[in-house]
Amino acid sequence: MLHVGVIGYGYWGPNIVRNFFSAPNCALKMVADGRAERRALINKTFPSIETVADGDEIINHPQIEAVVVATPVFTHYALAKKALLAGKHVLIEKPMTSSVAEADELIELAAQKGLTLMCDHTFLYTGAVQKMKELITTGVIGTAGYFDSTRINLGLFQPDVNVLWDLAPHDLSILTYLIEDEPVSINATGISHTRNSIENIAYMTVNYQSNFIAHFNCSWTSPVKVRQTLIAGDKKMILYNDLEPSEKVRVYDTGYVHKSDEDKKQIMVDYRTGDVYIPKLSGKEALAGVAEDFVQSVLQKRKPLSNAFLGRAVVNILEASQKSIKAQGKEIKF
Amino acid sequence: MLHVGVIGYGYWGPNIVRNFFSAPNCALKMVADGRAERRALINKTFPSIETVADGDEIINHPQIEAVVVATPVFTHYALAKKALLAGKHVLIEKPMTSSVAEADELIELAAQKGLTLMCDHTFLYTGAVQKMKELITTGVIGTAGYFDSTRINLGLFQPDVNVLWDLAPHDLSILTYLIEDEPVSINATGISHTRNSIENIAYMTVNYQSNFIAHFNCSWTSPVKVRQTLIAGDKKMILYNDLEPSEKVRVYDTGYVHKSDEDKKQIMVDYRTGDVYIPKLSGKEALAGVAEDFVQSVLQKRKPLSNAFLGRAVVNILEASQKSIKAQGKEIKF
Amino acid sequence: MLHVGVIGYGYWGPNIVRNFFSAPNCALKMVADGRAERRALINKTFPSIETVADGDEIINHPQIEAVVVATPVFTHYALAKKALLAGKHVLIEKPMTSSVAEADELIELAAQKGLTLMCDHTFLYTGAVQKMKELITTGVIGTAGYFDSTRINLGLFQPDVNVLWDLAPHDLSILTYLIEDEPVSINATGISHTRNSIENIAYMTVNYQSNFIAHFNCSWTSPVKVRQTLIAGDKKMILYNDLEPSEKVRVYDTGYVHKSDEDKKQIMVDYRTGDVYIPKLSGKEALAGVAEDFVQSVLQKRKPLSNAFLGRAVVNILEASQKSIKAQGKEIKF
Amino acid sequence: MLHVGVIGYGYWGPNIVRNFFSAPNCALKMVADGRAERRALINKTFPSIETVADGDEIINHPQIEAVVVATPVFTHYALAKKALLAGKHVLIEKPMTSSVAEADELIELAAQKGLTLMCDHTFLYTGAVQKMKELITTGVIGTAGYFDSTRINLGLFQPDVNVLWDLAPHDLSILTYLIEDEPVSINATGISHTRNSIENIAYMTVNYQSNFIAHFNCSWTSPVKVRQTLIAGDKKMILYNDLEPSEKVRVYDTGYVHKSDEDKKQIMVDYRTGDVYIPKLSGKEALAGVAEDFVQSVLQKRKPLSNAFLGRAVVNILEASQKSIKAQGKEIKF
Repeated sequence: MLHVGVIGYGYWGPNIVRNFFSAPNCALKMVADGRAERRALINKTFPSIETVADGDEIINHPQIEAVVVATPVFTHYALAKKALLAGKHVLIEKPMTSSVAEADELIELAAQKGLTLMCDHTFLYTGAVQKMKELITTGVIGTAGYFDSTRINLGLFQPDVNVLWDLAPHDLSILTYLIEDEPVSINATGISHTRNSIENIAYMTVNYQSNFIAHFNCSWTSPVKVRQTLIAGDKKMILYNDLEPSEKVRVYDTGYVHKSDEDKKQIMVDYRTGDVYIPKLSGKEALAGVAEDFVQSVLQKRKPLSNAFLGRAVVNILEASQKSIKAQGKEIKF
Repeated sequence: MLHVGVIGYGYWGPNIVRNFFSAPNCALKMVADGRAERRALINKTFPSIETVADGDEIINHPQIEAVVVATPVFTHYALAKKALLAGKHVLIEKPMTSSVAEADELIELAAQKGLTLMCDHTFLYTGAVQKMKELITTGVIGTAGYFDSTRINLGLFQPDVNVLWDLAPHDLSILTYLIEDEPVSINATGISHTRNSIENIAYMTVNYQSNFIAHFNCSWTSPVKVRQTLIAGDKKMILYNDLEPSEKVRVYDTGYVHKSDEDKKQIMVDYRTGDVYIPKLSGKEALAGVAEDFVQSVLQKRKPLSNAFLGRAVVNILEASQKSIKAQGKEIKF
Repeated sequence: MLHVGVIGYGYWGPNIVRNFFSAPNCALKMVADGRAERRALINKTFPSIETVADGDEIINHPQIEAVVVATPVFTHYALAKKALLAGKHVLIEKPMTSSVAEADELIELAAQKGLTLMCDHTFLYTGAVQKMKELITTGVIGTAGYFDSTRINLGLFQPDVNVLWDLAPHDLSILTYLIEDEPVSINATGISHTRNSIENIAYMTVNYQSNFIAHFNCSWTSPVKVRQTLIAGDKKMILYNDLEPSEKVRVYDTGYVHKSDEDKKQIMVDYRTGDVYIPKLSGKEALAGVAEDFVQSVLQKRKPLSNAFLGRAVVNILEASQKSIKAQGKEIKF
Repeated sequence: MLHVGVIGYGYWGPNIVRNFFSAPNCALKMVADGRAERRALINKTFPSIETVADGDEIINHPQIEAVVVATPVFTHYALAKKALLAGKHVLIEKPMTSSVAEADELIELAAQKGLTLMCDHTFLYTGAVQKMKELITTGVIGTAGYFDSTRINLGLFQPDVNVLWDLAPHDLSILTYLIEDEPVSINATGISHTRNSIENIAYMTVNYQSNFIAHFNCSWTSPVKVRQTLIAGDKKMILYNDLEPSEKVRVYDTGYVHKSDEDKKQIMVDYRTGDVYIPKLSGKEALAGVAEDFVQSVLQKRKPLSNAFLGRAVVNILEASQKSIKAQGKEIKF
């Protein structure tokens, strides 16, 4: 039985608390939030959970073994560091930190202390992403050629981070999980329609050593909501539409092959469009999978799926994207 | 009555010939194509039209007053120049030329000779684009903020031009027509999955002096066909989906406004989502509009809507995009 | 302040309790359910509500003024009658009763006692139905010509009532609310794929004195979920798709007019298809509207929108449909 | 080589002529139409075809071996009879005749004379229907349980036949082809919004001896166009959407099974929803298949797929539907 405390009860907080409350081998004991009305809400819904105003009470509590950090991004590093130093296992909301340097320091600290450090990239635990991982690792789609993601809606303009830091972590975590190749550089462009110069629309290309490319289109300023990704290989192509209630993943028996090796200049391409297959997906709540993976990783001393290295890889791309936008789309190498 | 000849009877040729054949005040007299089987096809369908193998016969024919150049892009400049020098009015298929230098030379030549020079950007004559132009010029959408276009499918890999030269001219002509602002620079990235290094996937951002941005996502390698553009203003936003049979243009009463002028750093945004309006569009064939505009522009000595300056503006962006892709996404200024 | 008790805490129970709990001028005091585990659930979520096993305790409680009957259909009549005799106002879940005779008896009893009797046809309180009512009463769609509803999915086979009794009440209540005309007869057909002869697929036509027709397609055996209704007038036509997240009501400027009065036999019809308009709808939870309407109707002694006469009209059609199905689709007159 | 003549060059005529013109082993020699402008159109497009004003010239021409009757329905019987008596093979447009008696007479006459008699139910030759036939005959969907078709749009009001005679033949031919069971009775209801009492909206249920039901919803008065059919078995279910450009047939691994045989009254149903499969369909033009089948059936003296018995079965249901509508939905037995 793992004794857990949660720091932060904002937008995502109720989901975290609900899932850790019912996770096997887990006892959610404390939740911290500075706002009295948020604590009152917890007391009403989960009378058995102790609420405190200050996260330090959780971090320093002798019975708490693991801490979930669900506060704004700019506070992640300090809270996680404090918790690790206090000997607690840590799960951090995405994105893991505000910089790669912070992520590296936390990773090293966790390693030194022998503690589990994990980042909550919830999407990895969805039936859709799990199915796509299976399709890729079993060779169904063949050699991956590109990843093209669109995540746009009329979204809340964030006051402190741009639209890539807000929306791209979902797709970057999926990309990093699905494609094992290492990115070598990125380009990003964007625009701010507000006076604070924080981009509300941004585009990013991630370049790879191999013949693979990833592209991201993120916006808080779209009249329509789109959450769609194409992931194509030379054998089959996947359309992942997260807004579809039950048909999120479509596998197209579509592709093209080079017919001849003789002339590099000449295009000899054979096209193929075949059946479409829409696999049945697991309907299990993704966040329940996150909670279980965190608890089991601690108890069994194993590496979680959404581990700190994956969380760091996402921050690495976000950090570079900011540099590229500010340098008018210049290629930023890793 | 304008006497017209068409050079080139390829993929688009039958549509051009059919529309010029039935355009008012127009007599389509000759069509040239080097391939005997293409000429046989014309003879069968339009027995009254004279067919010749060599376009020069049309250019030099004393009764021909105007020439339509519908050959591969790399031949546009030479044929159009020859026709202008022979005193013929010229309509060139899109993209107008392979370079801005060529376009400039043709424009100057046409001006010197007092001849009409036009580029066939067919989409400008569709009911959808005409409706959007009306919505923009009458102030319905307010101040335009962005243009975001996706044009992807499992398309024919072209052997000589990349996917931007093949697919982006449509959207670039629409952008240039709808938004009167001048672009200041572009960034483009892409990838070639073939051995000839011609990009089959490419992304492009067009930057403006004003608070406006345009983005293009073009691919020959998508399992699904998408032809969709978002054009948003601060009052209303438009979704233009060219694949919809009858509901191509959707106008969203959606937007956001800044609430306060006091603090540049602070975000004070009010969101609004309201009704959606799907206007009935003219169903007239766009290419019939092109033919009529060309004929009337010559006869009435007026500037056509899809004029050579617009054609040149499209080539200008395409030329810069190539430079940017080859320079790893570097910003190319105009 | 109205003191309310709820009898029955099944599938719909939590929604009823939650909405009456937070309805203005309403105090939800007691909930009855025979199953201990259901009562435990209430105690956990709403510790302030008293739970009892037997509905009679609520009906006979001196402080309870109004009772919500949310039990299986075959028990509605007996419980509602007992509650009315005990001087309580009554809200009954849909369908109101198992027969018209039962409905008539309850209506008469409520009238004698001066009590409010209401049936919970929740859909009438949705933003979509309210908008359609407005479009019809303000003359926007013109003279209504037909109502055509499809409500199919892979649904739970009910053991005691057929698919019409299960699914059609929603659409019948909407029809009755929107169209003030009186039906004169119905025809129904159907099939049972189970051994108990209870139809899992059924079709029903409702005929009117005027030039209006209504049709219903209900199924528990469809691989796809459809909840769609066409309501057409001679001026405009409405498509109501309840599965659309935000665009549930589409208004088509589509119609046809008779051009000439001279020859009855000759068809002279002019067609028109114009703009489409998708109104923004109220997002208020419909059941909150039901709770408020019930409470206010009792307190202000006014007739509720989803009143007992409407509830009776729905039962009237359902009862006739059963007769028609058993008589091989024979017309049943009212 | 079969020498063929076509009588009637109306709406469907150009498609028939084009396909018979290019069908293998077929020589389309003559086309008859009373209207000079229709004949002029043929002369322009197909100068090698002889045009005549009177169909009798074709019927009596010694070199013509087979006649296609593509005239209005009420003339089918007389023309086909004359052609059969003249010793010609006959293909009749759908619906075959205006009555079952007429169909029977033609069938008997063709049998006596040893001639091919065929009805053009084009849909049977589409890739979609061929794929569904394969799915049914190979047992993929299991025991068929129902067929539910919706074919509605804002269609041309016909002056002489109601909406069922106009639209239902397509779906009735598909039903008859796919489901080998015999219908035992039908019910139909409908309404006329015009003064000539010809129904523009109609609903029909076809009942079977076995546990199977078919339903048809046809309308000329819908603001949206729908051409959709559900065909469900106990193993899998098919959604056939003819408006989908490439994904017309979807196969759902969805179903339900009875768990126990013990109690006829008790419902013990297990539900299953699984993968969806969208097969690639043949894109061959259906009417080319009709032409080839007719020519080959004559030359090889074999029964065509869309044979006269199938054509008669469609007329049989249409005739009964008219009786049922006029008898207020009364069941009409065969």
